[in-house]
Amino acid sequence: MIQTDILIIGAGPTGLFTVFEAGLLKLKCHLIDALPQAGGQCSELYPKKPIYDIPGFPEILAGDLTGNLLEQGKQFEPGFTLGERAETIEKQEDGSFIVTTNKGTQHQAPIVAIAGGLGSFEPRKPLIENIENYEDHGVDYFIKDPEKYRNKRVVISGGGDSALDWSIFLADIASEVTLIHRRNEFRGALDSVEKVQELKLLGKINLVTPSEVVGVVGENHIEGVTVKKGEEEFQIDTDFFIPLFGLSPKLGPIGGWGLDIEKNAIKVNTVDYQTNIPGIFAIGDVNTYEGKLKLILCGFHEATLMCQSAYKIINPGKKYVLKYTTVSGIDGFDGTRKEAPKAVVQAIV
Amino acid sequence: MIQTDILIIGAGPTGLFTVFEAGLLKLKCHLIDALPQAGGQCSELYPKKPIYDIPGFPEILAGDLTGNLLEQGKQFEPGFTLGERAETIEKQEDGSFIVTTNKGTQHQAPIVAIAGGLGSFEPRKPLIENIENYEDHGVDYFIKDPEKYRNKRVVISGGGDSALDWSIFLADIASEVTLIHRRNEFRGALDSVEKVQELKLLGKINLVTPSEVVGVVGENHIEGVTVKKGEEEFQIDTDFFIPLFGLSPKLGPIGGWGLDIEKNAIKVNTVDYQTNIPGIFAIGDVNTYEGKLKLILCGFHEATLMCQSAYKIINPGKKYVLKYTTVSGIDGFDGTRKEAPKAVVQAIV
Repeated sequence: MIQTDILIIGAGPTGLFTVFEAGLLKLKCHLIDALPQAGGQCSELYPKKPIYDIPGFPEILAGDLTGNLLEQGKQFEPGFTLGERAETIEKQEDGSFIVTTNKGTQHQAPIVAIAGGLGSFEPRKPLIENIENYEDHGVDYFIKDPEKYRNKRVVISGGGDSALDWSIFLADIASEVTLIHRRNEFRGALDSVEKVQELKLLGKINLVTPSEVVGVVGENHIEGVTVKKGEEEFQIDTDFFIPLFGLSPKLGPIGGWGLDIEKNAIKVNTVDYQTNIPGIFAIGDVNTYEGKLKLILCGFHEATLMCQSAYKIINPGKKYVLKYTTVSGIDGFDGTRKEAPKAVVQAIV
Repeated sequence: MIQTDILIIGAGPTGLFTVFEAGLLKLKCHLIDALPQAGGQCSELYPKKPIYDIPGFPEILAGDLTGNLLEQGKQFEPGFTLGERAETIEKQEDGSFIVTTNKGTQHQAPIVAIAGGLGSFEPRKPLIENIENYEDHGVDYFIKDPEKYRNKRVVISGGGDSALDWSIFLADIASEVTLIHRRNEFRGALDSVEKVQELKLLGKINLVTPSEVVGVVGENHIEGVTVKKGEEEFQIDTDFFIPLFGLSPKLGPIGGWGLDIEKNAIKVNTVDYQTNIPGIFAIGDVNTYEGKLKLILCGFHEATLMCQSAYKIINPGKKYVLKYTTVSGIDGFDGTRKEAPKAVVQAIV
């Protein structure tokens, strides 16, 4: 059982900044995210796109923002359960919560902060009968660890940035990369399209267009895919089939936790962003209240106010006086200390 | 008469970020600040100190944050009335407000956003009889434009960073710099103390310690200061006397504008941070509400929500749909456009 002070559901920007603000209050955090890496949408959907409305950054790439937030919180040593979806929550007699993921990992904490963004990202799956049987047996909707594909044959399907970028990346790792798309045209960053074109001409990517994967075959583990091109159908042998058709966010199992929900978002108060269940907070894009704006900078504010309430719940009766980091510095849980250079008092003679 | 959409009182981080958020809504801003430059406390009190709790910056110098925020808003062409204090406000029949500064500059806007921080910074003045008579006649509490002192004699008084840094800076500009402090010991950044020591030994700064300026003399304009060192009193001829004894924030004239005040802060609601007077908002450290934290990141959030309400007041009945900068880009009032590189749709053959 993983134990922590604040259990954060969602490792996007809001969840990551919570680690920092909680750390200032000496509270430890653990994050659960269905995606295989931290950063939420920023890392998964548009890591190379610029954001212009993060205060103090005239422009920052979404992936860099994630990197900065991880760096800002790292001295507070957050824990991560990645690639698993928070599934059930149970309130214990001592007031704490136990949250269990779809893979059975259990987490216990007195405070739960849902920073789930637009929901957990569920892959759009191809309409192939029995494909569920091959999930985790050769069919992957996310790439967690590219090393898994070293010297293996891989079929990727899709026509957007993910399909292009992973084809490029795996061309150096897999023994054979086949990219299948139902059109000849791909939609993505210009340099990605051009790179795939180049790798195709070099014979490092097999391009099969306009085509569609209509079946998967194999005992226990996938052994090949059935491809339809016009009226023709044929089989391509492969060790892995990776359909990358995009992700669609779903509130998912959290919708059944007994929280007040309005238009797919969790209702909170505007004092500390607590939900109707005491001890469970909702921050960032996942919550709603009068005047709510789904902006990252609002999630940062909500996370900060939420941590103050979490502190009071965890330390009843204890008074906390807000300290400014510029004045007090930061003591990491890892023993590091950051502080402004001290002024000296020195005679000039 | 200066006319704008949102008149912002206070050009600290919150006020500066308001320019950006208002600009996204096609609203124009003008800022008034008692300090001679934008940035508020960050620029005036601790430009070289690191802040650790701005989201996305593991560390940023306060002065750099100010610079970034100015850069982020500059395409929306804000106006500035600096070195003047907002003094009076009058509501007009058309619902707009006219704000007049202590120097008589008038500004008209339908929306006033008070982003006054801890208040307008009033200089701590030395206890010298009649010093008021010499203000603007050789006695300055702020340095607005160092060129004013070129080839002039200057007496600076004080023992902290401002006194040290301006003595260093003016040593190259003024014909003569005298630094007077009541102790031999100065309190400041080590490199500033060491630099003054060096300039003193080079004869570029006259150091008079432990001493105090106890009088100012001159017809119409200052001609000299009376200095007391132990029991001895003597005069130093000078063209300027600049006491730099620090600043203390005062809510000041805003306190008499009819706003609900609680503990030196302006009460606002938590939906749009509007005060008891419709059309007047208060954002950042100057406001108070249940759970308020005086943090820069909270001011950013408050500014953003406030701008949405300002938009609705200025454009009654018009529907605004939140657009993401990553998706929609930014059109500056100066004709510039920022946008994410577009995806291409291109065949791979």
